[in-house]
Amino acid sequence: MSPSSETGRLIGVGLGPGDPELVTVKAVRLIATTPVVAFFAKAGRRGNARAIVDRWLPSRALELPLYYPVTTEVAVDDPAYGALLSRFYAAASEAIAAHLAAGRDVAVLSEGDPLFYGSFMHLYIRLRERFPATIVPGVAGMAGCWSAAREPMTWGDDVLTVLPGTLDEAALTARLKTTDAAVIMKIGRNLPKVRAALLASGLYERAIYVERGTMAGEIVLPLKDKNDDAAPYFALVLVSGRGRRP
Amino acid sequence: MSPSSETGRLIGVGLGPGDPELVTVKAVRLIATTPVVAFFAKAGRRGNARAIVDRWLPSRALELPLYYPVTTEVAVDDPAYGALLSRFYAAASEAIAAHLAAGRDVAVLSEGDPLFYGSFMHLYIRLRERFPATIVPGVAGMAGCWSAAREPMTWGDDVLTVLPGTLDEAALTARLKTTDAAVIMKIGRNLPKVRAALLASGLYERAIYVERGTMAGEIVLPLKDKNDDAAPYFALVLVSGRGRRP
Repeated sequence: MSPSSETGRLIGVGLGPGDPELVTVKAVRLIATTPVVAFFAKAGRRGNARAIVDRWLPSRALELPLYYPVTTEVAVDDPAYGALLSRFYAAASEAIAAHLAAGRDVAVLSEGDPLFYGSFMHLYIRLRERFPATIVPGVAGMAGCWSAAREPMTWGDDVLTVLPGTLDEAALTARLKTTDAAVIMKIGRNLPKVRAALLASGLYERAIYVERGTMAGEIVLPLKDKNDDAAPYFALVLVSGRGRRP
Repeated sequence: MSPSSETGRLIGVGLGPGDPELVTVKAVRLIATTPVVAFFAKAGRRGNARAIVDRWLPSRALELPLYYPVTTEVAVDDPAYGALLSRFYAAASEAIAAHLAAGRDVAVLSEGDPLFYGSFMHLYIRLRERFPATIVPGVAGMAGCWSAAREPMTWGDDVLTVLPGTLDEAALTARLKTTDAAVIMKIGRNLPKVRAALLASGLYERAIYVERGTMAGEIVLPLKDKNDDAAPYFALVLVSGRGRRP
């Protein structure tokens, strides 16, 4: 065998929205059989991805935690933020590359779907030219949230816009005014701004707030009934479409 | 026990993009244990949803096929189309309601995710006031397609717009000009129009065509390299975002 055929495979494994039962059969199989399992976490924490797979991960697996140097609460427009993260992703990629070069497959656990706002992508673009890769899609966090809310999201010819709550209020308002359905992600400290944009676009009465969808401590309520602006970063706001319903 | 506590539960079960291994553990459990399993299909066909669960469905399950009176290729702006579909969904809902009223849970198989452009929603809105319901989210068809294409879709603050290819060319062009990333669904006979809108919005060179993502006969290629306009209704076109990549 040539050396290249002996390198390991990089596997991005989507874990779904948080309920361990919402992991796919394929993800369970690969988590159970891949020798090295990598996952992102805040320093000193186990992390949500690792928690989701607790029941699926065999004790013989070699665990490779990748500890973020900063959290999502640091200002992303600070130039130091980008440089710090770039060094982190490069180092994490090389830690994974060492296993791949030695012929060991590496599964990277990804909350939600690996290619939809996923940290996995930062490893993938650094490694895909050097190693074979497989992507296992997962149930998106937003789908977990709208299933928790039991809210049909898009009908017929509805247009769905997925918006980061980090956009400025004018941009959010303009986008909301021209869509049929919307998901606003990354709520956290952006909630007052998101409320203002929903009011300005006439969608506030229809907005649903979801926190920890499909997980313990799940919260679903009309946004207008949420009496404070405390929200975790991964909370979502949903506005469902009003399209064709024969 | 009160009669209401003896009614069955309506369960919308997302099946994912087509690969039977991309069904969730929860969906497999519910498909294996729910006494009645309903699914949509074209008349005379078994249908794709039923095919996906072939390995998971026990022989003792009572199967309830729901045969569409028309296919998606009939003009949706014909008033007769809406009336025909409305009668079909009403009758299908009553067939399910008969089981629920008799105390039997009914799982409705839904390709992709049940609440994202899903036929299940037409049953759900007719039954949700009368019976308890559970929604099991699934991997969206579009996630199966972008994983098949190995295309990271959204980065950082990217906005994603999901567009039905059924929109007119001007609307498609306007939406494509103002988004960071796009998924164009329901391609079928709309492909020449979709190409024109992508050219007009400057995104044609970045567009990826995906047909039967995660299934046998999967096709992934740059749209500009697709030399004909033959496409099934469920083919997709992907344009990935260019957002923050530290």
